[in-house]
Amino acid sequence: MSRTVAESMALMEQETHLTESRPASPGTLRPGGRTAKVRRAVLDATRDALAEAGFHALNMDRIAAHAEVGKTTVYRRWGSPVGLVTDLLHDMAEQSLPASDTGSLAGDLRANAELVRATLTDPRMGAVFRAVIAAAACDEECARALAGFYRTRLAEWAPVVARGAARGEVPAETDPAELLRAVSAPLYYRFTVTHEEVTAAAAERAVTAALAAARDGVFARA
Amino acid sequence: MSRTVAESMALMEQETHLTESRPASPGTLRPGGRTAKVRRAVLDATRDALAEAGFHALNMDRIAAHAEVGKTTVYRRWGSPVGLVTDLLHDMAEQSLPASDTGSLAGDLRANAELVRATLTDPRMGAVFRAVIAAAACDEECARALAGFYRTRLAEWAPVVARGAARGEVPAETDPAELLRAVSAPLYYRFTVTHEEVTAAAAERAVTAALAAARDGVFARA
Repeated sequence: MSRTVAESMALMEQETHLTESRPASPGTLRPGGRTAKVRRAVLDATRDALAEAGFHALNMDRIAAHAEVGKTTVYRRWGSPVGLVTDLLHDMAEQSLPASDTGSLAGDLRANAELVRATLTDPRMGAVFRAVIAAAACDEECARALAGFYRTRLAEWAPVVARGAARGEVPAETDPAELLRAVSAPLYYRFTVTHEEVTAAAAERAVTAALAAARDGVFARA
Repeated sequence: MSRTVAESMALMEQETHLTESRPASPGTLRPGGRTAKVRRAVLDATRDALAEAGFHALNMDRIAAHAEVGKTTVYRRWGSPVGLVTDLLHDMAEQSLPASDTGSLAGDLRANAELVRATLTDPRMGAVFRAVIAAAACDEECARALAGFYRTRLAEWAPVVARGAARGEVPAETDPAELLRAVSAPLYYRFTVTHEEVTAAAAERAVTAALAAARDGVFARA
């Protein structure tokens, strides 16, 4: 991969909208306050550590040092590596971007598949996703947080399908979540299971296959 | 899940054809000889340990004790937990069963999807697959072995698609591997990424969606 660090960072923001200055979840923290800054620094350090060495190498003391935050604070607020990963996934869900609106369902789904492909093949973000997927395989709390992240993304992209159905591109009774899962599944399957390259051709085929099935009524609500 | 141990074992044999008496890979070991028996005992202990505690808890000394094999032998032949998982995956690939032949492509793909679903939802085999998928996320050698396992399974099931194409059920130029991946992907996506239940309805939908796309020519060879 020849993507530059700047491009990687842009991608990362595109997918998860992580910005240093953005306030953390409302209601629990004063936006821009010290607590929010500590959380941002700790979650950034967690993401970096996951990208570099994976879930099982996650070390609370090193996270505290990298984030320039006291160890006691990190232990008290996050408790364990699982607590860090879980909060990172909540943060990624809170900050993920709205869906595309290209004017056609095929265009929007193509943008979605291309975003998934770009994220999984980006050396840095690919490593973060690999680490959180491994964490979810090993820990029930991480699994719930990862499931929550994808529920949020499905909810954000569901209107794309509703708009496509309103334009008559797929049957009105199409279940948006099922169609969106069908676009992502072949890409994640390559990434996590068969460890085959997530190519642009695979992304395009995922969209075409999902749309063919949707038009056939396969994803109609039960 | 209320599946009995006996049913779990039957399932496991169905998916991977692991039997105590079956000789290991030909050419390297004398069938039924002492080396083959040691390998069988060590790989069975590895599979049990993965099912019970996952990849990161894999401990060479405990595997040796459970297999009733000397520690020195286990360290010398397998070297590390990665060596154990890699050899288990090779063994699972060597021993996996031939594909279904129900007389129709839809029937064969349904049998395939149902086998994947039954395996992933079986408490014991599901835990083994979760552990090897996590191992593959953390280690390149495990990732290659897991990819090899799925390549073997794709090769075994490819004739199902060729027969279906010969009967005119899908276009003649359909790429068997692409159609088969499309059946498995949604089930593994739920299992590894979104941690949603792998239901019988999801298996049926995976087959119907893959067939609709195949009939539309989406999986035609490039």
